[in-house]
Amino acid sequence: MADRLVYADNAATTSTSPAVLEAMMPYFGEVYGNPSSLHQKGRAAKAAITEAREKIAALLGAKPNEIYFTASGSEADNWAIKGAAHAMQHRGKHIISTKIEHHAVLHALESLEKEGFEVTYLDTDEVGRVTPEAVASAMREDTILVEIMFANNEIGTIEPIREITAAVKAKNPKTLVFTDAVQAVGAVDINVTELGVDMLAMSGHKIHAPKGIGALYIRNGVRILNLIDGGGQERSRRGGTENVAYIVGFAKALEDAVFGISEGTRVEKMRDRLIDEILKIPSTRLNGPREGRLPGNVNVSFEFIEGESLLLLLDMAGICASTGSACSSASLEPSHVLLTIGVPVEQAHGSLRLSIGRDTTDEDVDYILEKLPAIVERLRMMSPLYNA
Amino acid sequence: MADRLVYADNAATTSTSPAVLEAMMPYFGEVYGNPSSLHQKGRAAKAAITEAREKIAALLGAKPNEIYFTASGSEADNWAIKGAAHAMQHRGKHIISTKIEHHAVLHALESLEKEGFEVTYLDTDEVGRVTPEAVASAMREDTILVEIMFANNEIGTIEPIREITAAVKAKNPKTLVFTDAVQAVGAVDINVTELGVDMLAMSGHKIHAPKGIGALYIRNGVRILNLIDGGGQERSRRGGTENVAYIVGFAKALEDAVFGISEGTRVEKMRDRLIDEILKIPSTRLNGPREGRLPGNVNVSFEFIEGESLLLLLDMAGICASTGSACSSASLEPSHVLLTIGVPVEQAHGSLRLSIGRDTTDEDVDYILEKLPAIVERLRMMSPLYNA
Repeated sequence: MADRLVYADNAATTSTSPAVLEAMMPYFGEVYGNPSSLHQKGRAAKAAITEAREKIAALLGAKPNEIYFTASGSEADNWAIKGAAHAMQHRGKHIISTKIEHHAVLHALESLEKEGFEVTYLDTDEVGRVTPEAVASAMREDTILVEIMFANNEIGTIEPIREITAAVKAKNPKTLVFTDAVQAVGAVDINVTELGVDMLAMSGHKIHAPKGIGALYIRNGVRILNLIDGGGQERSRRGGTENVAYIVGFAKALEDAVFGISEGTRVEKMRDRLIDEILKIPSTRLNGPREGRLPGNVNVSFEFIEGESLLLLLDMAGICASTGSACSSASLEPSHVLLTIGVPVEQAHGSLRLSIGRDTTDEDVDYILEKLPAIVERLRMMSPLYNA
Repeated sequence: MADRLVYADNAATTSTSPAVLEAMMPYFGEVYGNPSSLHQKGRAAKAAITEAREKIAALLGAKPNEIYFTASGSEADNWAIKGAAHAMQHRGKHIISTKIEHHAVLHALESLEKEGFEVTYLDTDEVGRVTPEAVASAMREDTILVEIMFANNEIGTIEPIREITAAVKAKNPKTLVFTDAVQAVGAVDINVTELGVDMLAMSGHKIHAPKGIGALYIRNGVRILNLIDGGGQERSRRGGTENVAYIVGFAKALEDAVFGISEGTRVEKMRDRLIDEILKIPSTRLNGPREGRLPGNVNVSFEFIEGESLLLLLDMAGICASTGSACSSASLEPSHVLLTIGVPVEQAHGSLRLSIGRDTTDEDVDYILEKLPAIVERLRMMSPLYNA
């Protein structure tokens, strides 16, 4: 048994906070009506959704009728991308994105490519950043959609979405801009009106709501096709009886996360201490930028090491971390994000992501810094390529 | 205040049972890992999903790798219909369904029609039943998909899915058969292998799991396109971090529901008492069959009455019921199901669905039968068309 359990995989998912759980509880066994039902049980459920939608809209600078609940960030990504492409295909079939997107975005784009859409995948600089100029230069007459992630899930790079949106709109106001903000919402300040984006995807389970709830912001006036047709739910744009409990929980989680952003310097300080100390290990590199990085993200590569072995030994020491992204953990391919920013394949294989959060303590950081260097050293001693 | 609250809208949604809630609780704040993560927190979450999938498969006569979790019955419907159509369109673009399907099915089919697919919507007999012969006669060379609901959500009619499937397969084994079994799973015996269907959609919140979980059975070997692309979840067929808590809850709910089917005669007896007594009210008709009807479903039409006014007065008396289906409650159109089975428009407007369940008591039935006739009489007295 390990001395301690340190959960440093908050970018993969977070625990449901006690406050969120408490907020949700009445909506299981008590206020259980179908929000579409006209009777008292239905009206009470509907009122809860309305309140949650208003709260979320206010926190993001949106109007309540611009917030649409989904079951995940991935659903929001698929809906925005496929829905926009199919609604706009009479105007063109060209889409711009990047090489470092989440698989929900990349695979949705690939499915559109099979239908005859053309996608330009932009490169990034060596810390994963995309410039407004690069996006603008890639635009064509038939560019209907630009999708750039708000912050990268592996290396934490925050993209200049506001400037990118301005550049796109200056060139063609009709080109839609969508940002996958799953990692950013609740971690950095976001006001959709100031950003100017047409659509923004978010997820609950990255900010201490449960797994199974997300949302898509769709600016009023933006028309996209439905992904899930059905009853009149979500203004007839997303069928399926509403997950009332999780919607209430998501609103509470977002509120708590946004109120915590201003106090986020504590997490940033722990992140910087981790980075500084880990970089003292020889033949180690930081992936992603020092500035303009998600508060809780640490991503490093150790030469002469396999990431999976590293995860295994860390796990045995009670440290939960990841290599690449959790969603692609089953794959043996090195991270497409690390390859895009120019990390050599060997080093991409030896990458480690530590994602800390508001539940992380200084003692957790101490513990990671106590265990990690010895584990790295031990693995390197086993490598035939390593000359100590 | 009403003397009593009687919830008779179980076809719209049910409360999350205490047993289901208890089963889910550990997966919020304790076993909160991402099932795709390799560390202990991830493995524990993955093990819970595997166990739930095995349990559900066993209860339905399926193999575990034929069960795919979704966020709702509507998502399962959309996925099956659009995914099958898009995967098979090289072989044909004709689909057969009925006029009495749920809106998640009808609207998904309509979106395919806009893409150039052709849909034959079959009529039913006067109790809402579709015959295998009618389905077989509608089949053409280019028929790629047949979708018939297992049991109707408004009038409770159970369709002969096994015989329909056999008739379709006899004519063309390559034509896929999909059944929307949202109202049937957990209410009647279902074994997918005996049925012979290729796909079957289900939902948790109709059987005392929370709103926000469903599943699609896809027979091994059946290829349909993804609706939600993403990471490697659900064997790379449905992206999005898994809703671990609800998946566990759904398995528990299905187990409890299936084990309760054999004791379902109690619910059927209450249903039959309601039907018998309500039909004693003059100018009242039963919608749907007496035999081959969902155990908890009562649907009646009262002449000279508006369904909405009836709901309102019932609600004031503490009785939660519905007219038409909850999902289309916002619409002023009379139920498409009632019109299809030949209910005159005026009577379709005056319809009432009482859907009882395992939490319903004989005293609840007494209470409904005490209040309903007087309310009907009161409303009729207000109608200029009624001659008492």
